[in-house]
Amino acid sequence: MAGAAAVARPARVLGAAQAVPSVDAARLRRRLEVLSFNGRPPGGTFASGVSRVAYSVPDLTARAWLIQEIKEAGLAPRIDAAGNIYARLGGDAARPPILFGSHIDSVPEGGNFDGDLGTLAALGVLEAVQAAKLTTRHPLEMVLWAHEESTAFGKGTAASRIVAGDLQAGDMDQVWNGLRRGDAIRRIGGDPSQIETAVRGQGSWHAYVELHIEQGGTLDTAKVPIGIVEGIVAIHRYDVVIEGFANHAGTTPMGERQDALVASAQLTLAVREIVAAVQGRQVGTVGRLHVHPNSPNVIPGRVEQSVEFRDLSEATLTNLGEALRRRAAEIARTTGTTITLNLATTNPAAPATRGVQDAIGRAADAAGLTAMRLPSGAGHDAQMLASLCPMGMIFVPSVGGISHSPKELTSWDDCAHGANVLLRTVLDLDSRTV
Amino acid sequence: MAGAAAVARPARVLGAAQAVPSVDAARLRRRLEVLSFNGRPPGGTFASGVSRVAYSVPDLTARAWLIQEIKEAGLAPRIDAAGNIYARLGGDAARPPILFGSHIDSVPEGGNFDGDLGTLAALGVLEAVQAAKLTTRHPLEMVLWAHEESTAFGKGTAASRIVAGDLQAGDMDQVWNGLRRGDAIRRIGGDPSQIETAVRGQGSWHAYVELHIEQGGTLDTAKVPIGIVEGIVAIHRYDVVIEGFANHAGTTPMGERQDALVASAQLTLAVREIVAAVQGRQVGTVGRLHVHPNSPNVIPGRVEQSVEFRDLSEATLTNLGEALRRRAAEIARTTGTTITLNLATTNPAAPATRGVQDAIGRAADAAGLTAMRLPSGAGHDAQMLASLCPMGMIFVPSVGGISHSPKELTSWDDCAHGANVLLRTVLDLDSRTV
Repeated sequence: MAGAAAVARPARVLGAAQAVPSVDAARLRRRLEVLSFNGRPPGGTFASGVSRVAYSVPDLTARAWLIQEIKEAGLAPRIDAAGNIYARLGGDAARPPILFGSHIDSVPEGGNFDGDLGTLAALGVLEAVQAAKLTTRHPLEMVLWAHEESTAFGKGTAASRIVAGDLQAGDMDQVWNGLRRGDAIRRIGGDPSQIETAVRGQGSWHAYVELHIEQGGTLDTAKVPIGIVEGIVAIHRYDVVIEGFANHAGTTPMGERQDALVASAQLTLAVREIVAAVQGRQVGTVGRLHVHPNSPNVIPGRVEQSVEFRDLSEATLTNLGEALRRRAAEIARTTGTTITLNLATTNPAAPATRGVQDAIGRAADAAGLTAMRLPSGAGHDAQMLASLCPMGMIFVPSVGGISHSPKELTSWDDCAHGANVLLRTVLDLDSRTV
Repeated sequence: MAGAAAVARPARVLGAAQAVPSVDAARLRRRLEVLSFNGRPPGGTFASGVSRVAYSVPDLTARAWLIQEIKEAGLAPRIDAAGNIYARLGGDAARPPILFGSHIDSVPEGGNFDGDLGTLAALGVLEAVQAAKLTTRHPLEMVLWAHEESTAFGKGTAASRIVAGDLQAGDMDQVWNGLRRGDAIRRIGGDPSQIETAVRGQGSWHAYVELHIEQGGTLDTAKVPIGIVEGIVAIHRYDVVIEGFANHAGTTPMGERQDALVASAQLTLAVREIVAAVQGRQVGTVGRLHVHPNSPNVIPGRVEQSVEFRDLSEATLTNLGEALRRRAAEIARTTGTTITLNLATTNPAAPATRGVQDAIGRAADAAGLTAMRLPSGAGHDAQMLASLCPMGMIFVPSVGGISHSPKELTSWDDCAHGANVLLRTVLDLDSRTV
């Protein structure tokens, strides 16, 4: 009997916006505030941000608190071998669940929204569905990814990577700050000796949806409350070496210099020009730069620098790289330097599934919220999930585009809007083949 | 009797170029080659350069060898309390000597001409005067400055500074590489407990003349064998801090960035433009630059960099500084950064005495060598001597303008030309009030 009702109800609800339940916005806010105590600087306030690096004491206390909240909601949390926390509600056990969630670990001196919002909204969605006594075709499953930021153990060690099967021999023996990764995972309730049991196969979920703050300023500038993520951008990172000739800064006339830093300055400005020369949302950054010998009275003989391009389109990145090579050759010729570009890292793009994007769009419409499509310039757990099931992400505005900073801020209204669009998206997806 | 001849002879000699003695060019070359063994890299050749940092073992063996050479020339070397080596020949003891010489310490991985040439040419001048049985009105005095390069104990610790009276309480207690400066000076035969006896008063010498390689490419490019140094340039060094906003390199659209490195690149190129915008030999360099946080995926939030201007004219440096401030303000405005310029170091210019410059000009003419006037962009011991007596410097070409490098090179002919112009300059000055 309950089964039959479950099939009918969401379909009816979705057709009539006024009948859809809401996530409890006051409780969401309160939980964000309570969570912020775990890793708050001594004597600080919510605005002081948080340092809750994965596997640290604040991370342990925050996880314990969240487990308690899940239990108090009448749900049964389950910790996998990688330390990820899942909790499931209702649905037909023969169907793959719809998964949604995020992470609560932070960078050092980070903010109180990155990850936290998507995690606590996921619990709010389950509670709203419970409170409205909705039944769904697919089980609804929230997830807390144990470790997302690359602070602990560095790049490529996110817990969602394990779930996606990115697991190498020796991974559990990595050491960071004197801590073995296996021991870190055991500390949060995982089981490194059974780590492969955390790996999930393709089709394990009906879909994955993640609510997250944008971390950029596009939505805030456009005054649009909901972002429909088109995908997580690809990254092409070049290591650039510029060889000039180190010489005496007093005795070498300007016309006889082969100044590697002058060439580097031209290249850094060329990166901006190249990126601006074509339509689109692509970005280009010189973030790292080393000068040799780096003395005020010596003309720089060598500069090493990074150049990073990001865009959803691999073709755009290839074109940007070709433009960079042309400009570098020209700069090398006019400055008497040699410039070597090495494409050191390429991260493929993770496009969001069209059907999930459309579901988010319908959900925002139904909630009366404007939405825009945009890429995610940052990496997210959703990237890893894209290899397992249909994937989508909902963005809400970051005030001033600031994140990874205590100044990270999303208005309480936008938090609630995001949570409600997540709820409606999940219910929409429940009734469809994605 | 000898005294009467001494007065007459140089005057006669200088009027008839063919009668002037020459420095023994073959012996000068041989000595440069022998000296180069002290600090040569293992298995290397003359072309491998030298590492003969002041107070090191190669410096000690080189000094011992030079003392022996001076003695074999029939002269009596004297070591002052700072470790400088003097040797005097003839003249009227009631008159101040004419001083000439240089240094033999090097930077790590330096060349075999910087300092070495001027030192060994000074000994060659004394030998030439002896061999020709010339007598002079003023005693002729060669000097080896014990320590010129700022490698050991850093800036402001050159031994000629002590002679010029730049001596502070505690100077002997400075420590470098675990070595106390007083102990270093004792190691080379000085006496730190009597260090003030090395200080010399104004008028101690009739004049000071230093032969040195140019270390820049002006003479080499112009194919002119003799440079008449107009003075040692003044230096204005700015510490620049650029504050932008560190943000995510993936999520921050290009138009919303406050990229401190983009502002820095514009400033680095502005330095070149400002220097090129006015006539003259002034130079401007950005040699040191630090980026924060210096990560490929973070937009630089802060850059610290040096800007150094050098010229003989303080007015020119002041104008360059004002132009830099104007450009910095403009760059800050257009990049959304703040740029702070702090004039951290000012070294005053040390003009060469006109009378000594003219004597060098006459000496080059008489030797049938073309000469040009030029500033010294590098510091030299002559700078310190300028406060004690009339001062002048003779430059010879550096091939390709390279120095402080094993590739440092001056042709043997140019070495000999320089030594002979030094000899003629000394004899010219002997007959004049400078």
